[in-house]
Amino acid sequence: MDKRARVTLPTEENFFEETKELMARWGADAIRDSDGTELEKNIMQLPAKVYKTYFVARGHNEFIKGHLEERQQVYLMSKRCVATGDYTLEIDLMDGYYREQLEPDYTHDPKRWWEVINRTTGEVVPAEQWQVKRSEGVVVIDHIQPFHEYTVSFLAYIKWDPTHMYNHITNDWGDIPHDIPFDVHQPNSRQFMQDYLRQWLADNPETDVVRFTTFFYHFTLIFNDLAKEKFVDWFGYGATVSVKALEAFEEAKGYALRPEDLVDNGYYNTAFRVPSAAYLDYIDYISEFVCEEARQLVEIVHEHDKEAMMFLGDNWIGTEPYGKYFERIGMDAVVGSVGDGATLRMISDIPHIKYSEGRFLPYFFPDTFYEGNNPVVEANERWIAARRAQLRSPLDRMGYGGYPSLAYKFPEFVDYIEEVTDEFRDIVDKIDGSQPEVKLTVGIMSAWGSLRTWQHFMVAHALWYKQIYSYLGILESLSGMAVDVKFVSFDEVVSGECLAELDVLINAGDEMTAFSGGEQWAKPELQTAIRRFVHRGGGFVGVGDPSAYQQNGRHFQLADVLGVDKEVGFSLSTNAPENAPVASHFITDGLGELDFGEGKANIYPTNRETTILVGSEHGEVSLSTATYGRGRSVYLAGLPYSIANTRLLLKVLLYAAGKEADYEIWHASNPNVEVNVYPEKGLYAIVNNTTVAQETEIFDGEGQVETITLAPSELRWEELS
Amino acid sequence: MDKRARVTLPTEENFFEETKELMARWGADAIRDSDGTELEKNIMQLPAKVYKTYFVARGHNEFIKGHLEERQQVYLMSKRCVATGDYTLEIDLMDGYYREQLEPDYTHDPKRWWEVINRTTGEVVPAEQWQVKRSEGVVVIDHIQPFHEYTVSFLAYIKWDPTHMYNHITNDWGDIPHDIPFDVHQPNSRQFMQDYLRQWLADNPETDVVRFTTFFYHFTLIFNDLAKEKFVDWFGYGATVSVKALEAFEEAKGYALRPEDLVDNGYYNTAFRVPSAAYLDYIDYISEFVCEEARQLVEIVHEHDKEAMMFLGDNWIGTEPYGKYFERIGMDAVVGSVGDGATLRMISDIPHIKYSEGRFLPYFFPDTFYEGNNPVVEANERWIAARRAQLRSPLDRMGYGGYPSLAYKFPEFVDYIEEVTDEFRDIVDKIDGSQPEVKLTVGIMSAWGSLRTWQHFMVAHALWYKQIYSYLGILESLSGMAVDVKFVSFDEVVSGECLAELDVLINAGDEMTAFSGGEQWAKPELQTAIRRFVHRGGGFVGVGDPSAYQQNGRHFQLADVLGVDKEVGFSLSTNAPENAPVASHFITDGLGELDFGEGKANIYPTNRETTILVGSEHGEVSLSTATYGRGRSVYLAGLPYSIANTRLLLKVLLYAAGKEADYEIWHASNPNVEVNVYPEKGLYAIVNNTTVAQETEIFDGEGQVETITLAPSELRWEELS
Repeated sequence: MDKRARVTLPTEENFFEETKELMARWGADAIRDSDGTELEKNIMQLPAKVYKTYFVARGHNEFIKGHLEERQQVYLMSKRCVATGDYTLEIDLMDGYYREQLEPDYTHDPKRWWEVINRTTGEVVPAEQWQVKRSEGVVVIDHIQPFHEYTVSFLAYIKWDPTHMYNHITNDWGDIPHDIPFDVHQPNSRQFMQDYLRQWLADNPETDVVRFTTFFYHFTLIFNDLAKEKFVDWFGYGATVSVKALEAFEEAKGYALRPEDLVDNGYYNTAFRVPSAAYLDYIDYISEFVCEEARQLVEIVHEHDKEAMMFLGDNWIGTEPYGKYFERIGMDAVVGSVGDGATLRMISDIPHIKYSEGRFLPYFFPDTFYEGNNPVVEANERWIAARRAQLRSPLDRMGYGGYPSLAYKFPEFVDYIEEVTDEFRDIVDKIDGSQPEVKLTVGIMSAWGSLRTWQHFMVAHALWYKQIYSYLGILESLSGMAVDVKFVSFDEVVSGECLAELDVLINAGDEMTAFSGGEQWAKPELQTAIRRFVHRGGGFVGVGDPSAYQQNGRHFQLADVLGVDKEVGFSLSTNAPENAPVASHFITDGLGELDFGEGKANIYPTNRETTILVGSEHGEVSLSTATYGRGRSVYLAGLPYSIANTRLLLKVLLYAAGKEADYEIWHASNPNVEVNVYPEKGLYAIVNNTTVAQETEIFDGEGQVETITLAPSELRWEELS
Repeated sequence: MDKRARVTLPTEENFFEETKELMARWGADAIRDSDGTELEKNIMQLPAKVYKTYFVARGHNEFIKGHLEERQQVYLMSKRCVATGDYTLEIDLMDGYYREQLEPDYTHDPKRWWEVINRTTGEVVPAEQWQVKRSEGVVVIDHIQPFHEYTVSFLAYIKWDPTHMYNHITNDWGDIPHDIPFDVHQPNSRQFMQDYLRQWLADNPETDVVRFTTFFYHFTLIFNDLAKEKFVDWFGYGATVSVKALEAFEEAKGYALRPEDLVDNGYYNTAFRVPSAAYLDYIDYISEFVCEEARQLVEIVHEHDKEAMMFLGDNWIGTEPYGKYFERIGMDAVVGSVGDGATLRMISDIPHIKYSEGRFLPYFFPDTFYEGNNPVVEANERWIAARRAQLRSPLDRMGYGGYPSLAYKFPEFVDYIEEVTDEFRDIVDKIDGSQPEVKLTVGIMSAWGSLRTWQHFMVAHALWYKQIYSYLGILESLSGMAVDVKFVSFDEVVSGECLAELDVLINAGDEMTAFSGGEQWAKPELQTAIRRFVHRGGGFVGVGDPSAYQQNGRHFQLADVLGVDKEVGFSLSTNAPENAPVASHFITDGLGELDFGEGKANIYPTNRETTILVGSEHGEVSLSTATYGRGRSVYLAGLPYSIANTRLLLKVLLYAAGKEADYEIWHASNPNVEVNVYPEKGLYAIVNNTTVAQETEIFDGEGQVETITLAPSELRWEELS
């Protein structure tokens, strides 16, 4: 094993000797700058590749101040205002928004580009019935309907890049000028981006890898009048809009968008909304455009014999690494932040790149590296969480961020990261691109399909929300499980294409969301495709509100398949069967108390044959299973991530697939331990996912059993016999 | 006070002397038979009116067996069957039904009166595509769509009255013949009912009061193949149907009903469904018909110089005591079972009768009257619960049911009931028809309006359901509160008529039900009527899912009024304001820990001005209030009944109405005590609603305070100064 490989080290000034030492101990073969650090001056002396952060669409006020009409834009919805008078209503456009970040665009004709909507009826107010009072920043609506609510959807300029703003405010940067974002859709900006990149490449000969952070459009991040976050959507296309983009869209797609196509009742098309056809078209248009523009920048980088790497975050909108245009960019590498297994897979599974890199946690920042704290604890937990996924689909490289001088003050941490980097390299080299053995193939449905691979249920990157954690556990569990995971759209399920290769189909999420499916379930074709699939032997796993859409006497449209439905009050007169929970079942045996997170109330069996595994005193169901033709279904009220729930999900999937017999093949009896098999390499790996020693029986491919004890966090490789 | 008044005693054979003693001690002026008891033979010697139970539509198999085509009918929906083959699907009509109770009606042409529905698309299958195989009891559907679900809606005959069946099965009546219910819509049955009543009146000269149990149609009560309850709806019109009724309906209303108008996706139009126009028409048709037919029977009773009393239950369907035709019957009295305050008010508030009577609990049955149990405990609790309501709107009479010989064995119970009956008479006589003072007038909205006065949120009479108890507490609290309660429909709110007389409007219930309102909230007129009402000073109280209907960017359509909305996943990207709960507030001060029952998840403030009274760690709201123009709103996640919640609701209502100042007028500082004032009588009553002594400050009409101690359960009358 080459010790000096696969690791990127952040560096800083006046830290040269220590950098060399850390590079040697951690085997770093690349160094990078990062926000708030500068590269060491003697950089060229180091035996390493050099990454340098590059901002495409901001950091050049000297340019954009001469072209303020090329600032980035966004559609904003004003506050909802109720008309309490009889005649007119005045709406203050910027009420509730941060005036340092945003300002209305009065340049482009409001009558053409804005929309006043009666939110009580949903109707657009004719443009003759309102006027803009620019001096006061208000819109005055005439002929109002008393006690209806109105909003104005208006185009605004973004005066301050939100990440720059966030750092500025958080770090109290005082009178440092605000980075104004400029828009690649505009001629001067586009030219500047290319010219400046060429200049920069010439000026930075020591740079081997241009680390784009990222390209053109930041995910939607809007601040309120108190300079606090008001709206955040890591997937949001809000800041991609402009009159130019809207005109180009019309040209490309043959129809014009309305402001409401982007404002979406103030929900702004978050990933939880079942996307409209228009919004999908818009994503398609923008991502094709972004990928082409990015391609041109990458080409310039390549012309200079450097590599192009993109950061998965910040201005990543439109790149869509799992979309159909990403390949065109010709990107060499993607780097992203790894908090757990699912975020690792989100990066490591990206196609059409030469290599992927994870930035691991913790950051070398004072919030972790302070006297009295042991940063090894977090580093260990994060590594264990991510390692499960690394064993299934490895990142090619890893790295850290922050101030290495801080980390250097914690010798135990330096020791521990030496172990981690060694182990990381060892995993990548041992697996060596081979396919680990899978027990089954699982499809997860959503309205987004593969475009949101490993990105379901996410609001802001890796942040906890009460409404998502009970579903995110599915992805996190799967990220390190011996299963093949496909992200499929409802349309693909309807067409039936994807079902042939699946053992089990998962439908998870809160009702009416893009993940549960909402109005998708009104389609008979979707229902029948899944019924046929299950009836002929497939497995169906529903979590939360699977197939929820109230119509035709069912809340869960696949209640017949699931054997349960949600009681919404309409069938209280119908006595639900009182199926007693079974005492023992393959799925639950040996798992102890289960945690369904937020869970779901009012789920009841629809017939006497439904097998209840976990139910409440009043007959509500948290975990159940049903037989449907030759197939099976499982209902789960929720699946927050835990080691126990990972084992639960594995058993659920195997049971749904009718493959219980495979459970004890390449299996650890102790749920804290997992086994991964690499047939092409003649190896298998036994991994202890906890920080304490674990004893476990290990079942091999023939069901032979051996009892072993693993050290805390141990990863043990064995040869296949 | 006349000791011998207002009380009805059940009697039984061979219990003559004891009956006389009980009558004297309890002051009974009437005696009655009841199910399973016979009147004492020497009845005429007793100084009492005699009630006799009379069944109109059953108990005469000798008649109906000669006219089996006149049996009562019901529309049943078969099981939902999925078409797993490619060509045909066979549906077993009676699968899941109790064949002793029901049989398909093959007499009337199935092609005309039945409906086969594709429940996956909601479409009716053309009659050419299915045939009935009568010998096998199945329908065979051709040209099926694979993996669609199908049902057959078919007319069935009811072979066995469900109450008779229930008693028969429960009491193991062996080969006693099954009572076959017959239908007043049919010529022979109608004639028989009138003829037999005349005969019976002639045969029962000792009877003073004919206690109809009840008239023609039992509430819907369907049993399953295990002879257990399958479907129960105390309000259900299911068993009123017949070809005759459907034809008469078409004649009356000018259009024909489809089977689906009654089958309603298998929900059978329970009271929780927002009623369709067709179902409301059907109720209107049937209740006009029932009231006319009942009127004729009552007329016959009156011709015999007897009184007619109806039982509120069993075959009460179509009488609709709060409907527009009830008055026409000319009923003398209504009797019903009193379990608590709300059920008391449901009887005592019935208009157009000479007197009302409550049958109090416990029944003199062995389940309560067994050695070692003290029946006084239940009797005391029940009386205390009901007494609150009796002090607001008194029943004229009370009574008991069951075997008096059982009660007689419990001398303490006999003593206690002597107290209760004395107190009951005293209340009625003291109030003497006068109006108690009210602090405010409250309207409760539903799709049913006054038709379901005191009948909201009920499935089967007085039974507990997990999905209703968090709302029933509203009615129970109000039943004894110093407020005037109006039951108003959404249409009445839209027209604005009813709002003028209201201080506060309540909207309570689970989303999409007839109580919350469902699609009613799509109407701008409903929203604007309430916004205007509140903005001009009215109060709005939402419980559970008020104004819930997802559209135009809101889940709660009145989120602007309420200051809260439900997060259904679409606005996770929008940061909800983090309003900290206030430390002190009029509504919550002094109330201690509050119980919201099932509560509601995912309720968040919509703006910074919303005042949070009770919230969760993650910012969810259980109790909050907002200002809207000159008015106020309060949001409550649920209100199960308790003494503490009664006080909570009173404070909520006063606060919403802006009448906090009235709180300490005619007020008991101790929530266990309530004060009722009778200005016309110059009296006020202080009532201890607990079985332990209570000390309390009593505030009079001028706010003068006096501290008193009440004995357990004490009701104390004082004169107004």
